[in-house]
Amino acid sequence: MADRRETAEIGLIGLGTMGANLALNIAETGHKIAVWNRTRARTEAFAREADDLAAMLVTTVDLSEFVAAIARPRRIVLMVPAGKPVDDQIAALLPLVDAGDVIVDAGNSDWQDTDRRAAALAREGIEFLGLGVSGGAEGARNGPSMMAGGSDRAWAALAPVLQVVAARFEHDPCVAHLGPGGAGHYVKMVHNGIEYADMQMIAEVYGLMRDGMGQGAAAIGDGFARWNEGPLASYLIEITAEVAGSIDPDSGHPMLDLIVDRAGQKGTGRWTVIDAQMRAAPLPAVEAAVTARVLSGEAEARAEGAAIFGEAGAMELPERDLESALMAGKILAYSQGFSLLATASAEQDWSLPLPRIAEIWRAGCIIRSAMLGDMARALAEAPDARLAFAPDFAVALEAHVPGLRRVVAAATLAGLPVPALASSLGYFDTLRQARGTANLIQGLRDRFGAHGFERTDRPGARDLHGPWG
Amino acid sequence: MADRRETAEIGLIGLGTMGANLALNIAETGHKIAVWNRTRARTEAFAREADDLAAMLVTTVDLSEFVAAIARPRRIVLMVPAGKPVDDQIAALLPLVDAGDVIVDAGNSDWQDTDRRAAALAREGIEFLGLGVSGGAEGARNGPSMMAGGSDRAWAALAPVLQVVAARFEHDPCVAHLGPGGAGHYVKMVHNGIEYADMQMIAEVYGLMRDGMGQGAAAIGDGFARWNEGPLASYLIEITAEVAGSIDPDSGHPMLDLIVDRAGQKGTGRWTVIDAQMRAAPLPAVEAAVTARVLSGEAEARAEGAAIFGEAGAMELPERDLESALMAGKILAYSQGFSLLATASAEQDWSLPLPRIAEIWRAGCIIRSAMLGDMARALAEAPDARLAFAPDFAVALEAHVPGLRRVVAAATLAGLPVPALASSLGYFDTLRQARGTANLIQGLRDRFGAHGFERTDRPGARDLHGPWG
Repeated sequence: MADRRETAEIGLIGLGTMGANLALNIAETGHKIAVWNRTRARTEAFAREADDLAAMLVTTVDLSEFVAAIARPRRIVLMVPAGKPVDDQIAALLPLVDAGDVIVDAGNSDWQDTDRRAAALAREGIEFLGLGVSGGAEGARNGPSMMAGGSDRAWAALAPVLQVVAARFEHDPCVAHLGPGGAGHYVKMVHNGIEYADMQMIAEVYGLMRDGMGQGAAAIGDGFARWNEGPLASYLIEITAEVAGSIDPDSGHPMLDLIVDRAGQKGTGRWTVIDAQMRAAPLPAVEAAVTARVLSGEAEARAEGAAIFGEAGAMELPERDLESALMAGKILAYSQGFSLLATASAEQDWSLPLPRIAEIWRAGCIIRSAMLGDMARALAEAPDARLAFAPDFAVALEAHVPGLRRVVAAATLAGLPVPALASSLGYFDTLRQARGTANLIQGLRDRFGAHGFERTDRPGARDLHGPWG
Repeated sequence: MADRRETAEIGLIGLGTMGANLALNIAETGHKIAVWNRTRARTEAFAREADDLAAMLVTTVDLSEFVAAIARPRRIVLMVPAGKPVDDQIAALLPLVDAGDVIVDAGNSDWQDTDRRAAALAREGIEFLGLGVSGGAEGARNGPSMMAGGSDRAWAALAPVLQVVAARFEHDPCVAHLGPGGAGHYVKMVHNGIEYADMQMIAEVYGLMRDGMGQGAAAIGDGFARWNEGPLASYLIEITAEVAGSIDPDSGHPMLDLIVDRAGQKGTGRWTVIDAQMRAAPLPAVEAAVTARVLSGEAEARAEGAAIFGEAGAMELPERDLESALMAGKILAYSQGFSLLATASAEQDWSLPLPRIAEIWRAGCIIRSAMLGDMARALAEAPDARLAFAPDFAVALEAHVPGLRRVVAAATLAGLPVPALASSLGYFDTLRQARGTANLIQGLRDRFGAHGFERTDRPGARDLHGPWG
């Protein structure tokens, strides 16, 4: 057996679906890669399945052999479950690596953990990159969108590999160095929150077509396929058409009708919502999506509610109104998401490049869509603006909000839930109400708690009290 | 000067508005009370203002004099700002108190801090009571609603005082021992979250009357005054009528029209929402209320939005529909709140007495209302039920949801924001949808991430995959 020390350009730990696919992607793009997995059987199975890429792999059976197989300064990618496994793996690596080596966490880690690990590893002289990877199993294999956070050195060491591994939009690789520490995982978290909102709004429109308008799965799939030819063109709309149009080979029924209506969640949607709350950044579309997933798990309660209150009624609307609802809802949800990124960027002092974030989401990731190119341009032209107020998107909202209104109103009267669409419309209508209603809230708070209030006719005067009681 | 050692039955630290009023209340109900404040001038001013209650006060100028003035085992109430000041005050007291003494934190503390402090003080042999106090300045003076958490001994030591100091509903004192550690502050936090939702829904209806129906403040006040005679009868509706009906003596204009439309928040609404998210408990009405307060602070953005998109149009609805919207919205928001309490109670192993919580909210606190008595009965009859599904409330929802639907639909078409009302309706409609739409979400997740799904026709089978792609 030949000496394999320092023959691999890069190493990867964790050969689950995502890790195995990413390793094959790295190998296929011409990088000899050392791999190691906690269970040896998994490594062996991976090597067998690698086929003609086997020559680009260095399979290893223990961690020291793995580390020794990588050329220095070493680049070691972790693709292990978020949380303690990442800490454990880093702790196991620390005695084996040298100052100047780079560890990459490519899992779905909490950005605060990444911040903490980056600081701890910097004290050991180890570079650290927190890498958000989107695109699912398929993206990992053929080109994901990747959001990197960490030191300049860590990025410099990984960029040559990541730029060829990443998805491409036209010729532009969908990967970027977004900021220090946890910045990459943070952006990935917000990406996932937006994905929750996107999917929930699609599911709401699906519900209106199914329950309000009596359409079958095939007709619904046809509708989404038509929308995918227009301004809604996106991966999620495309696969909604595909999923709705699929037939179960066993029963001959539409597959969609046979899937249990309980949605799982891995937690990144909830993390996004909690983070937004902590920053006092409005994110109602994602909140509605997370709540909808939670209630999807309460099947017994929903059956009880249906038995007590009866089912919803019918509604009829032109297809173009449903398309408008998805258009306006989507613009408003993304506006919320980019505003959150702007708030976090300022608070964390990250200088997140918002236009570049929109660009690297144009291919590879789950929320890739035609609209993201327009968003990148709008954010570049007016970096401090709300996306919803940027000229092109304001025009689009003018065109599509009336349809969104008709959809929310019709669903509301019919009794069909559209919480994410309605919350995005509420966000829009709140943001165009120059004189709000919080004057009443302040009046009440002063009445019961002597909190004081400001007066419109005496700017700058504070802590006035009302003439009540 | 006579020796005042151990002459006071109880002591109180912190003579801000709430502390001073609570001390006067305790004195007035016949308990000699030692008081101390960090700044001596405040203590002296307090003593001067105490008038004929001065004989019941033992004012002290340093902490050791204060502690020595209290009969043993000592009962010491802290009414200092939440956070570090509480920890600092406890640390300062520790060398001066004896095992068996009781410290009460009557501030708006985070329940998790209270849990931590209770555990730390137990190790020192000190009893600790975390006491949520609601009712504002007026309540503190004349009878608040109080939610106690802590050891049985701490409760036993304080109950005789708290039961005479508390507000009374008929003859029932509005105070109870709800559980260990932070249970009292937790319930107070959820109370505040519900208060946010209550006030936001009132503000939304106010906005419809003002902007959609062109009513002046006086007419709006009259409307709320009429509603206060019916099933909505409550403190918040009552003071809404009062605030809307008040005239600014300087200008002769309605006071309400002169208050700046930016609502402050102390954070307990946000705490509630974050806690609910962490427990995966749906709380959309409070989320909408918190978001509305945040956006109330973005006056420039709202002015910009109004300039771009124009203002909302008119709408007309009968007054009884607005009343129904508040009725249904309120029931649904409280149902969410009590479900959160039930979830937290199970997770923390607190055995929270939900009916008793509704009872002690019937007087003294900001959210006191006629409806809470019915809620207490419903929760006692069906302790595991959702409030919205309890027979009496299901009947009320059947009666009032149609009005809520008409209000949300009309506001939606007119462009007036009703985020809390709409979100409560979305919660209701989701909870009566036996077959939800999360089957599509699961289909998409399987399509892009190979997450798998369950089939309706093969219960128990797991990790199936679809026939896509």
